[in-house]
Order: sequence, then structure tokens, then C-alpha cells
Amino acid sequence: MQIGLIGLGKMGYNLALNLSDHGHNVVGTDAGNVEATSKFEIVPTLEDVVNSLETPRVVWAMVPAGDITEAVLAELLEKLEPGDIVIDGGNSNYKLSVARAEQFSAKGIAFFDCGTSGGTEGARNGACTMVGGDADAWPTIEPIFKDLSVENGYLYTGPAGSGHFLKMIHNGIEYGMMQAIAEGFDILEKSPFDYDYEQVARVWNHGSVVRSWLMELTENAFSKDAKLDDIRGVMHSSGEGKWTVETALELQAAAPVIAMSLMMRYRSLEDDTFSGKVVAALRNEFGGHAVVKK
Amino acid sequence: MQIGLIGLGKMGYNLALNLSDHGHNVVGTDAGNVEATSKFEIVPTLEDVVNSLETPRVVWAMVPAGDITEAVLAELLEKLEPGDIVIDGGNSNYKLSVARAEQFSAKGIAFFDCGTSGGTEGARNGACTMVGGDADAWPTIEPIFKDLSVENGYLYTGPAGSGHFLKMIHNGIEYGMMQAIAEGFDILEKSPFDYDYEQVARVWNHGSVVRSWLMELTENAFSKDAKLDDIRGVMHSSGEGKWTVETALELQAAAPVIAMSLMMRYRSLEDDTFSGKVVAALRNEFGGHAVVKK
Repeated sequence: MQIGLIGLGKMGYNLALNLSDHGHNVVGTDAGNVEATSKFEIVPTLEDVVNSLETPRVVWAMVPAGDITEAVLAELLEKLEPGDIVIDGGNSNYKLSVARAEQFSAKGIAFFDCGTSGGTEGARNGACTMVGGDADAWPTIEPIFKDLSVENGYLYTGPAGSGHFLKMIHNGIEYGMMQAIAEGFDILEKSPFDYDYEQVARVWNHGSVVRSWLMELTENAFSKDAKLDDIRGVMHSSGEGKWTVETALELQAAAPVIAMSLMMRYRSLEDDTFSGKVVAALRNEFGGHAVVKK
Repeated sequence: MQIGLIGLGKMGYNLALNLSDHGHNVVGTDAGNVEATSKFEIVPTLEDVVNSLETPRVVWAMVPAGDITEAVLAELLEKLEPGDIVIDGGNSNYKLSVARAEQFSAKGIAFFDCGTSGGTEGARNGACTMVGGDADAWPTIEPIFKDLSVENGYLYTGPAGSGHFLKMIHNGIEYGMMQAIAEGFDILEKSPFDYDYEQVARVWNHGSVVRSWLMELTENAFSKDAKLDDIRGVMHSSGEGKWTVETALELQAAAPVIAMSLMMRYRSLEDDTFSGKVVAALRNEFGGHAVVKK
């Protein structure tokens, strides 16, 4: 199948290679400089991609969520024609995907929101994809997802928005699982025993209840740096955990562990906290407990 | 190797079959009735086990943690001789294992505390084992663990107590991972979309970041009961999550997600809560907000 790919960053480039390996004819573009390859065609602009494709076109946008995705989709909305198909493979907020599907649909263009998991390695060799959008157009693009995903690794999730919603929840679960794993190792590190964390993660990956890809990544990390001495425990986040918690609040769903995982990430961004100062000051006020002076 | 096995319940019986398959000569006993088998020898009492074994003996206790383990180990302490080896494969509190190792050591008997993960299926076909205890005696029993565990699925963790400590933390992590997964599905269930949860778990198990044995069990559960309509959300626990939180408190380790997972289990045991009544009453007191009458 002929596929246009907007965005050839870490994810998009690997996706293009993956699709090319499966015999698809990829025409890609990127705002930045991209390494030339004989595997697929790279053209200068989004407009060139649109002009290169035969109709009905299939165009996949694989750019960072937010302003860039907004700009790319706005341009596609303008340049594509009825019968064409657009896939947003980035981590857009599902509410935007619901709204965008309506805009594209009004022009007779089918819109799909695809949550993609598995990192760049997955994009290259087999991803996990969750795809919401136009039920009638789904059979046309299903072969793409069958090819680029690992076996059994794609799902048509229902109407537009449901793909990104599911990916958002996947990331929320990921936050909780990561924090649980991290707290376990934190207790081990404070314990009277002297564990080899790489070996601990290794044994847990073989036959235990907590075996998981995240524990395999934990094993990898400890294999490179036995006590993670070279890094600081600063935990950034890129939005989907926050959206999961916001969604839980909207839906009045009790999700304290996912919410707490997010809060612990925020806590990690500060060396000292104002809340800590307030509690210390109050203990001093009512009990004369010593405060730590700056 | 000749191995005595005290306790032929779900775990012990499968362990005995597993060890027998690997050519070990198992002599087992159980307080209850046990299905006869040609695979290994079953004798009436613990004393019979001790008398059946050549010295130095290796005796594995696989009985429920608490009073039963205490009684079995007390009897072994009395009946075994210097040079013998005892393994506690149950989920004993690590502090008891430290104390018991000292008692056995004083009699010249080597004590090992073995945390066993992977359920009855693991006990039968390949477990994950974490073993603390006497470093000098470890090489003698290592072949047992190599045989009964999955490949790469056993670890000598250090001095007595370190095996059960590690298993405790494993279970604490398990609590957090399970609660994170559960909260994710809870938000899906309250969402405007209509997901097939078996398919969701299936796709997440193929290439996603949250792929894990627990997600595979989630898939199994939804395959049998699409919305889990047949069960109530009552979450019992058997002690190791609580010990993990108690240990975190002792060590002043911040483990809010594991702690919250435990609290959510306790919350699930009550249809109504006294804390809920208190908050409702207070809202009524200061703001005249309506309370729900019994």
C-alpha cells in the first residue's frame, strides 16, 4: 500500500523502515534533516507527500502531540480530498481526536487516532497499536496495522478518540506499575540486606508474578549501572499520566495509585518543597520542634 | 538428591512432583489426606520423614506461614541433627526467618528461607525462588533450586531472612501493579467508549510497555467473564503487602503506591465505611449538605 508519513523522527523513521520492510510504498517528510535511505522516499514538504500519493490517499502523521500535530493536521485537512484517510499516530489527547474526526468527516475524510506503544524498538520491529476511527474505512487500513504491529498487537477500538483514550489509560497503568517497581527497589536499598539489583530483577523476570517488560527494562538499567549512581531520581512526564488522572476526576473514578504515581513524579522535580516548609513551620509553632534552617 | 517435604498441599504436592520429575528422591508427609502417587513416597508423620532420610538430611517445609510453620520448624529443630539442612519455602515473615536461622545454627543445622513465586503452576513446572541462608551450605542445595525453578529463575540472596524479605517486596510490587492495572480498567469501564476488555488486555500483551504476566492473567479473567459480572470486587490479602508497608515504615521509605494499594484492599472489604459517615456528617454540619440516610 502507498502510505504518506508526516514526521520522520525516532518513531516515524522506524515506522517507515518497518512499513517498507513489509512491502509498503512509503513517502515521508520531516521538518528537520533526515538521514537518506534507499528504503523509502523522502520529499521536502507535506504538500509534496500529498501530491506524490495516488487517491484515495493514506497519510500517517507521526509528530509530537500539541502544536505540531495541530499544525500538521490543519494542513492535511486543507490539502486532502474526500475519500482520503488520515491517521494520527502520536499521543494526542483523545478529546482533540474526537473533535478532529468530526472536522475531517465533514470533508469526507476518514480520521483514525492510533495509540502506539513499544517505543522506537517497537516502531521498528513490531509495535502495539490501538486504533479508533471510522468503522467503514478500517478494513482499508487494517493491513498496515497487521504488518507494523507484533502478532496480535493491534486492535480496532471503536469510534474516533477510543484509540488515544486507550493509549492514555495504558500510560496511566504504566505510571503505577513503574512507581510500584521503584518503591520496591527503594525499600530493598534501605534494607539491612545487600542485594544485587540486576540479579533481583533477573530472577523476578523468570517465573515470578511480577515478570514484565518493565522488569526486563529494570534489569537492563541495573546491568549498566548497578546502583543507578550516575543518574538523579528526577521523574519527568509527558502528559498522558496527567490526562489519565484528569479523566479519572471527570469520570469520578477512584484511581489513587495512578494519581499518586503522577504526584510522586511532580515531587521528584523539586529539591525542596514549600509543603515541607509549611509542615516544618507548623510543627515548630505548636510543639517547638526544631526546623532545619536554610 | 534425597529431600524430605513437610506439607503436601497445593504448593508442596506440585513441588514434590516437580522435584521427582527431576530425579530427586522425595519423601513427603502432610497433616491431611493426600492423593497417593507412584512419583514419590508419602509417610504418615514428620518423624517418619526424618527417619527415612540419610544424613546429612535436607528437609523442605512447605506449610502455611504462621502457627503451622512455627510448629513444623520447632519439631524439626528438635528432631534434626548437626549437618542437616532445613528450607522454609513458605511465606514467613523475614524477621522470624532471621531468628529461626540463629536457633538452627546453634544446633549446627543450616537454615534457608526460600521465597517461592509463580503459584501452583510454577511449583509444578518451574517456579521462581529467592533463597537466603547459610552461604557454606548453599552449594549443597543449589541443584534442588536449579531443577525446580524455571531457567534463570532462582537466586541466592544472601544471609538468612534475605530470601523472605525479597519475596515480601516482590509481593508489595505485585500489589501496586495489580491496583494500577485495575484502576486503568475501572476508568475504561466508566469511559464513553465500549471496549472489549479481553481484547484490550490481549493487545496490551503484544508489544506494549505494560505487557506482563499479570496482564496475561487479566486477559484470562476477562476471557471467562467479559465484565467480571460474576464476582464482587472484594480484595483479600494474605499478609505480605502489609509486611511490605510495615517494613517501609520501619525503614522510613516512601512507598505511597504500595501503601495505597493495601489500603484500597482494606476499603474493598467494607460495604460502607465509618470514615464516609464522618465526612458526610461534617459536610452536613458546616454546610447543610444532605446526608444519605440509612
